[in-house]
Formats: sequence, structure tokens, C-alpha cells
Amino acid sequence: MHGPLMSEMTWPEVDAAARAGAVALWSVGATEQHGPHLPLSVDHLIPLELSLRIARRLHVVIPPPQAFGNRSRPLSGGGPSFPGTTSLRAGTLVQVVRDVVGQLAAGGFRSIAVLNWHGENVNLLHEGIELAREAGDLERPDGGGPVRVMLIERVFNAFSEAEMAFLFEDAREGFPGWPAEHAAIMETSLMLALRPDLVRRELIADDRAAVRPFYDLTPTPPEHVAASGVLAEASRASVAKGERLAALIVDRLTAAISEALDPPAAP
Amino acid sequence: MHGPLMSEMTWPEVDAAARAGAVALWSVGATEQHGPHLPLSVDHLIPLELSLRIARRLHVVIPPPQAFGNRSRPLSGGGPSFPGTTSLRAGTLVQVVRDVVGQLAAGGFRSIAVLNWHGENVNLLHEGIELAREAGDLERPDGGGPVRVMLIERVFNAFSEAEMAFLFEDAREGFPGWPAEHAAIMETSLMLALRPDLVRRELIADDRAAVRPFYDLTPTPPEHVAASGVLAEASRASVAKGERLAALIVDRLTAAISEALDPPAAP
Amino acid sequence: MHGPLMSEMTWPEVDAAARAGAVALWSVGATEQHGPHLPLSVDHLIPLELSLRIARRLHVVIPPPQAFGNRSRPLSGGGPSFPGTTSLRAGTLVQVVRDVVGQLAAGGFRSIAVLNWHGENVNLLHEGIELAREAGDLERPDGGGPVRVMLIERVFNAFSEAEMAFLFEDAREGFPGWPAEHAAIMETSLMLALRPDLVRRELIADDRAAVRPFYDLTPTPPEHVAASGVLAEASRASVAKGERLAALIVDRLTAAISEALDPPAAP
Amino acid sequence: MHGPLMSEMTWPEVDAAARAGAVALWSVGATEQHGPHLPLSVDHLIPLELSLRIARRLHVVIPPPQAFGNRSRPLSGGGPSFPGTTSLRAGTLVQVVRDVVGQLAAGGFRSIAVLNWHGENVNLLHEGIELAREAGDLERPDGGGPVRVMLIERVFNAFSEAEMAFLFEDAREGFPGWPAEHAAIMETSLMLALRPDLVRRELIADDRAAVRPFYDLTPTPPEHVAASGVLAEASRASVAKGERLAALIVDRLTAAISEALDPPAAP
Amino acid sequence: MHGPLMSEMTWPEVDAAARAGAVALWSVGATEQHGPHLPLSVDHLIPLELSLRIARRLHVVIPPPQAFGNRSRPLSGGGPSFPGTTSLRAGTLVQVVRDVVGQLAAGGFRSIAVLNWHGENVNLLHEGIELAREAGDLERPDGGGPVRVMLIERVFNAFSEAEMAFLFEDAREGFPGWPAEHAAIMETSLMLALRPDLVRRELIADDRAAVRPFYDLTPTPPEHVAASGVLAEASRASVAKGERLAALIVDRLTAAISEALDPPAAP
Amino acid sequence: MHGPLMSEMTWPEVDAAARAGAVALWSVGATEQHGPHLPLSVDHLIPLELSLRIARRLHVVIPPPQAFGNRSRPLSGGGPSFPGTTSLRAGTLVQVVRDVVGQLAAGGFRSIAVLNWHGENVNLLHEGIELAREAGDLERPDGGGPVRVMLIERVFNAFSEAEMAFLFEDAREGFPGWPAEHAAIMETSLMLALRPDLVRRELIADDRAAVRPFYDLTPTPPEHVAASGVLAEASRASVAKGERLAALIVDRLTAAISEALDPPAAP
Repeated sequence: MHGPLMSEMTWPEVDAAARAGAVALWSVGATEQHGPHLPLSVDHLIPLELSLRIARRLHVVIPPPQAFGNRSRPLSGGGPSFPGTTSLRAGTLVQVVRDVVGQLAAGGFRSIAVLNWHGENVNLLHEGIELAREAGDLERPDGGGPVRVMLIERVFNAFSEAEMAFLFEDAREGFPGWPAEHAAIMETSLMLALRPDLVRRELIADDRAAVRPFYDLTPTPPEHVAASGVLAEASRASVAKGERLAALIVDRLTAAISEALDPPAAP
Repeated sequence: MHGPLMSEMTWPEVDAAARAGAVALWSVGATEQHGPHLPLSVDHLIPLELSLRIARRLHVVIPPPQAFGNRSRPLSGGGPSFPGTTSLRAGTLVQVVRDVVGQLAAGGFRSIAVLNWHGENVNLLHEGIELAREAGDLERPDGGGPVRVMLIERVFNAFSEAEMAFLFEDAREGFPGWPAEHAAIMETSLMLALRPDLVRRELIADDRAAVRPFYDLTPTPPEHVAASGVLAEASRASVAKGERLAALIVDRLTAAISEALDPPAAP
Repeated sequence: MHGPLMSEMTWPEVDAAARAGAVALWSVGATEQHGPHLPLSVDHLIPLELSLRIARRLHVVIPPPQAFGNRSRPLSGGGPSFPGTTSLRAGTLVQVVRDVVGQLAAGGFRSIAVLNWHGENVNLLHEGIELAREAGDLERPDGGGPVRVMLIERVFNAFSEAEMAFLFEDAREGFPGWPAEHAAIMETSLMLALRPDLVRRELIADDRAAVRPFYDLTPTPPEHVAASGVLAEASRASVAKGERLAALIVDRLTAAISEALDPPAAP
Repeated sequence: MHGPLMSEMTWPEVDAAARAGAVALWSVGATEQHGPHLPLSVDHLIPLELSLRIARRLHVVIPPPQAFGNRSRPLSGGGPSFPGTTSLRAGTLVQVVRDVVGQLAAGGFRSIAVLNWHGENVNLLHEGIELAREAGDLERPDGGGPVRVMLIERVFNAFSEAEMAFLFEDAREGFPGWPAEHAAIMETSLMLALRPDLVRRELIADDRAAVRPFYDLTPTPPEHVAASGVLAEASRASVAKGERLAALIVDRLTAAISEALDPPAAP
Repeated sequence: MHGPLMSEMTWPEVDAAARAGAVALWSVGATEQHGPHLPLSVDHLIPLELSLRIARRLHVVIPPPQAFGNRSRPLSGGGPSFPGTTSLRAGTLVQVVRDVVGQLAAGGFRSIAVLNWHGENVNLLHEGIELAREAGDLERPDGGGPVRVMLIERVFNAFSEAEMAFLFEDAREGFPGWPAEHAAIMETSLMLALRPDLVRRELIADDRAAVRPFYDLTPTPPEHVAASGVLAEASRASVAKGERLAALIVDRLTAAISEALDPPAAP
Repeated sequence: MHGPLMSEMTWPEVDAAARAGAVALWSVGATEQHGPHLPLSVDHLIPLELSLRIARRLHVVIPPPQAFGNRSRPLSGGGPSFPGTTSLRAGTLVQVVRDVVGQLAAGGFRSIAVLNWHGENVNLLHEGIELAREAGDLERPDGGGPVRVMLIERVFNAFSEAEMAFLFEDAREGFPGWPAEHAAIMETSLMLALRPDLVRRELIADDRAAVRPFYDLTPTPPEHVAASGVLAEASRASVAKGERLAALIVDRLTAAISEALDPPAAP
């Protein structure tokens, strides 16, 4: 039996999974610079790896991750000036979400979970889901009422204070706020745990923008962007932090998906 | 001399102000339920009132506030089920911002500040500004290079820990997170300070949703939404908190606008 | 009891008004130059003031006026070259109207009236309403059938010949046609009656474009635009004309709204 | 030499005409009911026939007329309920105009005239032209600066009072206003003069809606629409009126095009 | 009785035809260079002429042909560099199709056939039809279920090998593939048969691009485009080929329309 | 050194590759049923695998493949009724292409190749590229003129007759035309060669729709779609055919990319 990657499944296999009540668990991320030590795929690879772990517990089907996200912004991802950062305009992403979510519903999935890992996608995924709903695309084709759609827009909203402390206790400046936590402790740790083959350990180094204003400015002044693309302390990342964080997130998401969408156990 | 409200100014007056280096300071908010004790205009009235205070110090022109914002979401504003909540689709708001910002630039303003007070507008204002820039609409008509645009997307990003403590020290559950801080301590306090005539004090009461998940679910379960529309503790609001907070915000924004856009002092 | 301004009402108050059969009476205008003697808000302030007078007779709720309208055109508003004129592209306005009208219907209003005061909005308001209808957004949430929407696109279509004569009898060139009647007799008179605080009387002066062709030309030749932004005779405006005209319009609109939408009397 | 119809010309012939300074004269109309006696093509056939007459005097090239226009409205064209009325949404028409005008400029025409004959297209043609201009599509490919675009939005704006009197002197109710002058005296007369083969004379009859309000209402009440689709007095139409009117319009348009765009005489 | 051209019919005539079960047979083409010997209208004139022949056998109504199609591409139509080629962007054409097809259904036609003659329109017509269906615009107004829509995207898909041999047997290079068969044997022959008045016989000449790659390149290299706009052998065209081909196509389309949509015989 | 997959590279690595003249080689496909024996990813996996082989010879960077393509159509891919088929609307795909191609150019790539493997994407990729060009997004950021974009829309256009004969010589019905060659000889052979782990050999079986009309019909009659999703003879597929075909395509594409874009050899 192939799965849980939809791209490796045939249509009768997807059909059977959807009929069995599997959740379509779709990762949405970005292709965005993450410093000299992390690949451009961090924002779509992390949710994909987490999804694969969730798939060991719950019956889910994983559609092809959305590798392109909304415009990278200077204060939270370095912005558009880094080669390799490849973004969509907001309207494009909204339409992608509207279409894909609607098509998953048309394919027979009775519940869908969207797992986001890119701050610049906030509000756009919700919009895409709402547009699909308004168009009638989230009604079950079997007449069984609305398809349920779960949106996990910011995973870190699920973190407790204790967990935050563990993550940032040895950081010289403490928790820098989520926007600046880019290519830094959390993401580097997670990549060390989930895809160590893609981390250039020898290139891990701290960096930060000269200033971190609470506002954006266009055109972007150079002092608002760190030259390396690392926006805070990457050097305090560790495999241990990554493993614990990954386990924690998988637990939380598994519990939340079970609670909200009630899928069968993994086959 | 009329001003700083653009709606009360004539075109030669706007022309003179723009030539003098005034900043166009535009409020973007929402028309959204804020419980039984606050009016629907909280999200566009607060930034407007703050702008009027800033106008006492800096030379700014205040275009008509954008009263309609992006879709209210259940976990941060109660969502679309409350009568009176009147929202725009995301694409609509993006285009409004693109057009208005571009027109202010065409009108001769060399710097523009966008002051947002609605979480659901996050990322959309940035998109609108970028679309205007890409279309060439943010080039100064006098050939003087790009118009500078400042986006204040989340004012509370400017708050220090001490200030947060002051605000939430007497709240039974402490700081509930910004999404849930809707029609609660911060906004009620500010309205008590800025527009007390619009606060129904006798109706101030705490409320909260039965559950506060870290994810959204469509269709929205009733337990995700507080029946009154108040998502946390409104009863701990006070005029004193509001005054201190308003003063603090006005100070911060005045300093930030001066730093980033360098307008003349108020005429 | 607050009202009729929706921005000053709470959601339970709006809910009660909608249930009681109140009409949502929405002004749509523009932010457009009106010469050196009138403010940029003429096109959204006049319908708002008229609405407030109607609200003394009929039970209406007044949502935040739409201050930005479609592109000002040279022959009817001076066009885009005047600082302060701040317009939306046509598609933007259409979507704003589609969304707002649909949201008012979703909020429980069983009837909506759209009051326009900007010639360049013609056909766009109708399009927005039709798009909302096509999307199913104008069905009553209580299943009671379609929400009724009244569009008052050109108020002056309601004027009789006698009334036109009164307005223009002492004008040297007579009635110049509605497009050229911009910042001239009608609008200056109405502002003198409705918002005299915003009229710079000492700056009232006649003007007109060197030529008034029956066609538009792009790029706009300078002789098609009056330098002051006044397109005809403003000097023949008077408080008396304004009062009579305002009274007449309020009477006509009150009668028409009653006839078409049958709201209760003002509470 | 073929011409002036672009559809009958080859590309080298169009090239030669554009280089010689010919004006691209494009008709935009509608496919809309015009009662039982006139064909659905009235609104695109009349401007086409007028263009052919202009082409005897001025060097013009006539691109394929735009047969589909914006939504027919009940008070000015009977609305969407008549079989055969085939309309575009506003946004569609705007984009058609943007593209076609831009392409004519790209093809080498240094001046373009758009001749409209459908009230519901008002403002949309202007928007399409402006969008083309903003996109840079109205710059001459030879670097010679902006292409000139003339928009004749309402031909009847060119009529004098004397001419109006001639047209409507024997009408029982006089001039009913342009919106109601649909399939009535003016259009029937013009068709009798320009395309008598398409007029069903035996079916010419007066009609009118039971009421003619100054506002639109959705859903449209039946009494707002004349059952036949004729909105005023068609029986007072005559070949003589049509001939005189056609001659007058051709004279006016020829003079205006000459004045504004200065094309060579017809080849 | 007027017909089958909808532009010559009145609304009651269209109504009667639709009620009688007539098919709306709509031609979609392009305005695109076809060398020095053929007019720009080839792509919308050929399907129109074929439709008129079909109308002698089946009861069809022919709406105004869509004269503007999607962007001409260098390898299949010479591309945008030829004066007179007047194209729409893809999104524009999709919306035109969505609107027109939906309006024909609203007008009472129970079946619609779309006849395309422009390779660059491929997939866009299908999209337009699907968008109309998704919007609910292809439901019969009488509640009789879905309107049937037939899309004839590439007529030559109906040709047999024998027919291909007849067409290209005397061509020096044989069948060059359909994209290159532009303004060449097939189209020139058909025009010689259908509209010989529009063929400049003395200008018929072979041409071809210097290279015919299997890929497109932007910017287009000059060697990818034939200078004359003729992409293959036009000189082997003949009236006989055109007559036979036209007869064959009309037979095939008549049979296919009968089979799929079952209209009455021509009245 | 990581590569050629952009998702595994860091931003400095992409920067270096782009500066060295590497081509961005982007696969665009679909997620579409391919019968019971092939996975849903065939249309994006095949071009990705081919790209990886090309990367052994030429210096290319491979951005994340576009896994979602335009609507599957019944006659060429089975259409939307198969679970797992997950399509985008045409406008969505066009915008994705516009954005991604523009971003690759902004990232410093001086040449881009788009490799398509989904018939329903035809014309849409070209549109996306043109929109990026029109918006100025295909100008090199270093001022070096236009970025070159190669579009390989239909790879099989590069096949010779001899190669077609080899592929289809033992097929009972011969070559069925490319639309019907879905999940059949060509694609099954290629998957057997490129990704044998994903082919369910025991489920390979021939199928075909009961009829194969040359036109589309909406709603789709069941006899137009093969129940299994295989539209022709899959059983004649073989590893040998797949290997030969893959080698041939890689040779052709390598040669074509070299010729058109002239990248360095693989590093």
C-alpha cells in the first residue's frame, strides 16, 4: 500500500483513503532564503516532515506541498532581495489555496487540514478557504454537508511558556519575537532533527539586522536586513532542541487533528 | 487653515501640505463587532484618534480612514456571524490599498504612513503597497525618486514588557494573546480614553469563548466564539490604562514617523 | 439609543435595527477636488448629510460612507491631476460595493439603499450589486427571499424642470449640463446649506475649462481642464438655493425609499 | 485597395494605413433587445454604420466592432430578462477595451477613437483606456510619445436644443430622457435611415414601463420594464428624422475627430 | 423570417428559436495576420461561414462572432509583431467566454456549440465554459437541468488520414504540422472557397520561418518568424481543396452537432 | 556542493549558480489520475526526472516543480471526476507562472526554461510568461537586458516519425493521438524507466472511452471517459521503450537548451 504521499498514490488509492475518512493534510510554506546554512525549502520541508510523522499515527493523505508562498518580507524573512527567494503575490496564493482546497473536497475528502509554516501566508490561507466555501466548493459531493477545514496558521501558538523557555534559555538576547526567529534557533534546530543532511553545520552563525523596527519601510533600508539572511541567533540551535520541539509539535498537532477532525488511526 | 483631516481640506491646501513635506497618515481598520459596550468603529476610530494626536506634533495630512477591513475571523474578532460586522474580501482590501497609496503618491506626498488596527489586515496592506510600487505608482511625480511608505501593521509590537505588565497585571488570566485581546482590556481602555462618549460602561462585562484553540475550523463550532463578542476580560479596562497607553503609542509613533520619514513639525 | 450612524452603534443595536426593518442607507462618493472653496469630501459628505436628514423621518442605519470613488475624469471632476483627488480604479470600487452590500445583507438588513454622489461611479455600483446577487450574497440569511437593493445613482434625475429653473435661472450661461456642474452652483449651494463650516466663501469664484468638448481625449489637453477645478459658475450659489435643494432631495428620497423599501418611521 | 474594415484588410494594408496616420475608429456597443421591430445589433450596428460614413471623409481603419457590452439595465435597456440580450460583466468589458486599445497602439496607430453606443458602457471604456495607459500600452512603439485616444462616450451630448426639438417635437410626451429613449424615436429613426432592411416596420409600436422611477431596484419589479422592450414612443420615428440625425452625427464626429486627431482625408 | 444571424434577429425571434430547440452556434476566432494575401479576419470569418452553411441544415442561431482571440504566438500565427494582429490577454478571453455562454443559457438556449478557429484559444474556451458552469450560469432558467455545451476546439481533429493526404499530397514538404499551417494550404484553400472576394490571389506565395523549433523563446528571435506571416506553403492552395474541405467540415460538424445536441432541422 | 534541486540549495549557492550562467529549469505538470497503475504525480514527476538527467550535462538549477496544473479535461486526462485529480483554474496557473518566472529573473537567472508535461497547461504558460514580461519582471536586475525564457510546451513535438513508429508499432490501434495517449504507452513506459518503484505493474491494463469524439461536451457523458482512467493501450508499454524515449528526450532537450540558452556544462 502506497502512501501517505498523494503524489505516490493512484486515484483508486486516494479514493479508498478518502472514503475511509482520512484527512487531507496539506503543507503550505515558501521558497525563501534561510541563511547560508539552511536550504531554501525550510518553510515547506518542515511542515512536510512533521506531516510524515503525524501520518504514522493518523490516517492522513499528504497532497503535494505548496512550495511557493507569499512575498517574503524584510523583517521576517529577509525580503525579496535574496537570490533564490521565490514568492507569489498574495492574490496568487489565495487562488491556489481556494482551488486546491476545493479540489480536495471534490475528490471526496471529508476533512482537510492546512499546515502553514510561513508568516507571510497569514490571513491568505483563511481567505482561500473562505472563497472556496463561498463558491460552494466545500460541500461534500455525497451531499453529506460541509467539508471540515482546519487551518493551522501559526504552529507556535501552541507552545507553552515552559517550552519557550527551553528553546530560548541559552540565547543571549532571549526570545527575539517570532518574525526575527528566522533561520535561527527554532528552524535550525528543527532542520537538525528532521533533515540533518540539508544543514551546513559549518556555516551556522548568528546574525541580525542592525535595527529591528516595529514597522516596515519601503524602499527597505539596508540596516533593516541582516546580510546573511539569519535574523537572530542560529548558533544556539541543537539537535536536542529540534527533536524535542518536533516531538512536541507532532503531539500537539496529532491531538488537535484528532479532536477537530477525528480521522481513523494510521493504516 | 483647515486640517489635518484631508476630507476637510481643499485641493490647494493639500497641495501646499504635500509640498511642505507633510506625511499622509492613513488609518486602516475595520467595521467589526466589539461586544455590547463598544461601537463597530473601534478598529478605525482608534487609529484615527491616535493620528489626530500625532498631528499635534508632526505635520501630517489624514486621508479618510479605511473603515472596512478584511474578513473578521472567529478567533480574533468573533467572525462574520455578528450583525454589523461588515468586511471586505482580502483581494478587495489589497486593491483599495494599492489604489489609495498610489494616489497619495500621485498627489505629491513624498512620504506615507499606513496605520493599521485590525489583525486580519496583516500582510494585505503590505501586498497593496508592493503592488503600487511594482506598478510604478510610488515614484514621485517630480522625478525625485521613490515615495517612502511606512507600514505600522501591529502597533503592539512596539510595547515593552513593562508596559504589557501594566496593562494586564490585574487581569485574572493575565495576557490572553493579542488575537483574544478583542473588545477587552486594551481596546476598552483606549476607547475610554479617546472616545468615552461611545463606550456603554454599564454593558462592560467579561466573556470568552468556551475554548481557544490554536487553529481555525470551518464551519466554526459555536464554542470557538464568545456569545457577546468580547473575547477576554473587558472589566479590567480603565481610563487610566487607556490614557497611559494612548500617550505611549502616540509617543512611539511620533518618534518612529520622525525617524523614518522626517516630516516638519505640526504647523 | 445610539444611531443612525453604524460606526457609533454596537452590534446588538445594529441587530435590533435590522430586525425592526431599518434600511441600511449607504453613501458612496469620492475624494475629489472641488475647487479652492470646497473640501475634497463634497461627494461623500453631501450624501451623508442628506442621509442624516432622512434618518429623522425613516428608520435607517448609515454604514460608514465610501469616501473613495472611481477615477475622477477631466470633464466632470477635473481629473487626476489635482493633488488631493484620491480615486479607486473601477474594479476596486466594484468589489468594495459587492462586498459591503453583501455583508449588509448577511448582517440581517432586509433592504439596502445605495446613495451615490459621484458621476464616475455610474454603472459600477450597479455592477457591484449584481455581482453580490449572482454570488448569492443578497439572499436573506433567514431564508426570507432576496434582500431588496435600491440604487440612487443620479439624484438629479429626480429634479423637475421648475426646480432646474430655480437653480440655474440667474446663471449667465444657464444650466451647463451635469458633468460641468462640478463645484459650481448645485454643490456649492448644498454645502452652504449642509456644512457651511467647510465652505471658504471668500474663495468662491467662477471658472470653466477653455473648451468643453463632448468627448474625452487622452492625454488630456490643458484646455479641457479649468485651472481652479471649478467647472462652471460657483458664484451663483446661495444658502437659499442649497436649503431648498436639500429639502427637495430629502423629500424625494424619503418618499422613494418609503415607496420602494417601506421602512418603519424613525425611532 | 481594401478597407476601411480592418477585418477585410491584410496586415501590410493596416500597416500602411497606420503609417499614413489613419485613425483606428472602433465601435463599442451591445447585443441587447430593442423591441419587436429592431434587431439585437442596434447598439453596435449604428456606430458601425456611422463609422462607415465617416470613413468616406477621413482616413480611418475600422476594427471589428465590439458586439457585446456591459449588462443591460432595466431602466435603460430592458435589462437581462429579454432573450437575446447578451451582456458582459463590467470587468470583462473593461479588460476587452484595455487589451484592444493597447493592441491597436502596438500595431502602429498613432490615434484611436472609441465610439460608444450603449449607456451601460459609460465609465467602463474610460477605465479600459486608463488601464492601458497605466500599463504603458499607449506609448507609440516608434518612441514618438503617447498615442492619442478619443472617447466618444455619449454621442447625444453633441446635440443642440434645436436638434432635440426636431427629434421630439411630435412626441406626445416630449423627450423622455436618454435612458428611456431606447428602441424609440432616435434609434428607430436611425435604423430606418441606416439599415432599413433590418427594421420590421409593421411591428413598430409605442410602449413604456408602467413607472419610470429615478432609481433602480433589485429584484426588478415588473412595472419597471415595458413588456415589449420599447421604453418610449417608437411610432414617431421616421426615415427623415433618421437621415437628418445621421447626417448631423457624421458631421459632428468628422469635425471632432479632425480637430482632436487630425487624420488625413479618406484615401 | 430573419436569421440565423442573431445580430439581425429581434428578441421575440430569438426567444422563439430558443424555445424551438435551436442551438446557439458561436464562432470564436482571432484578428490575426494571415500573410499578404488573406485578411485579418480569417480566424473568425471561416467559422462564421461554416456556421452559415450548417444553418442550412440545422436550426441554429449564430451570435456575433468573437473577433478577438488570445495572443497570437510567433510559431503558430506570427506573434504580436505584425500590425493588425489584435489580441486579448488570456484572462480577458476566458471572461468573455464565461459571460457570453452564460448569457446564451440565460436567454433560453438549451444547447450551445462553440466553434473555435484559433490555436491560441485552446484551453481558454474550456475554462470559460467551466467558470460559467461553476457559477451556476449553465442551469436552464426553466429548471430543466443543465444546458449542454459543445466545444469544438480543433476542427482538424476530425480529419481522416485520407483527407490529410488529399490536402497536402502536392506540398513539397508535406504536412508541416498544424501550428505552421497558418495562412497556408488549408486556410488559403478555405478562403478561396468561402470568401474568394477577400483573397489577394496575386500575392499568394510560400514562406516559412528560417527555423521551426519545438519550443518558444522570449524574446522571439527573428529567425523564428516568417517575414511575410505565411508559415508554410500557401501556393498549393486551391479552390477545389477549399470546397472539398469546407464540405467535409460542414458534414462532420452537422453530424456531430446533431448527435450531441439534437437540434431540429433548419426552419 | 548541493544541487541541482533549488529546494536543497542555500541562497548563496543559488546566487553563485545564477551568476555562473546556470539555467533555471522549471517543471510544470499536474496532479492528475493516471489509471490504477500509475501515481497521480506522473505529469510533474516525469519532467522532474528528465530535468535531473539534463542536470548531469548542463548547469541548471531546478526550482520546486509545479505539482498542480490546469483543470484535467475528460478527453485528455479523464477530467475532474477522479478522486485525487487536483487542478487549478486557468487564471490561477497563469498567475503562478507569472510570479515564479518573474521571481527567478529577479533572483539573477539570466535564462529560464519551462518544461511542461500536461496538455491542459497549453497556452497558459505562455500567458504567464508574457504577463511577467509586460510587467517588466523579465528584465535582468543587473541591467543586462531581457532574461531569456524558453517554453517547452509539448515535448512530443520533438519526436520524429521513426520514433513514433517505434513507440506505437505494436499497438493494436496504432497511435491514438496525443490526448488519448494518457496513462498509456508513452507515460507508462517512461515511468517504468524513470520511477519503476511507483508503477503497479500488476494493474497495467488497456482501456479506452467508449467513444472518442473530436469535441467536448458539458455535462460530460459517461461514454466519453474510460472508467479506469487509462485512455488507450497501456499494456504495450515497456522498460525498453521508456529508456529509449527518456534518452531521446534528454538528448533533444539538452541540445535545445544549449542552442537557445547556452548554459555552462554541469559543474
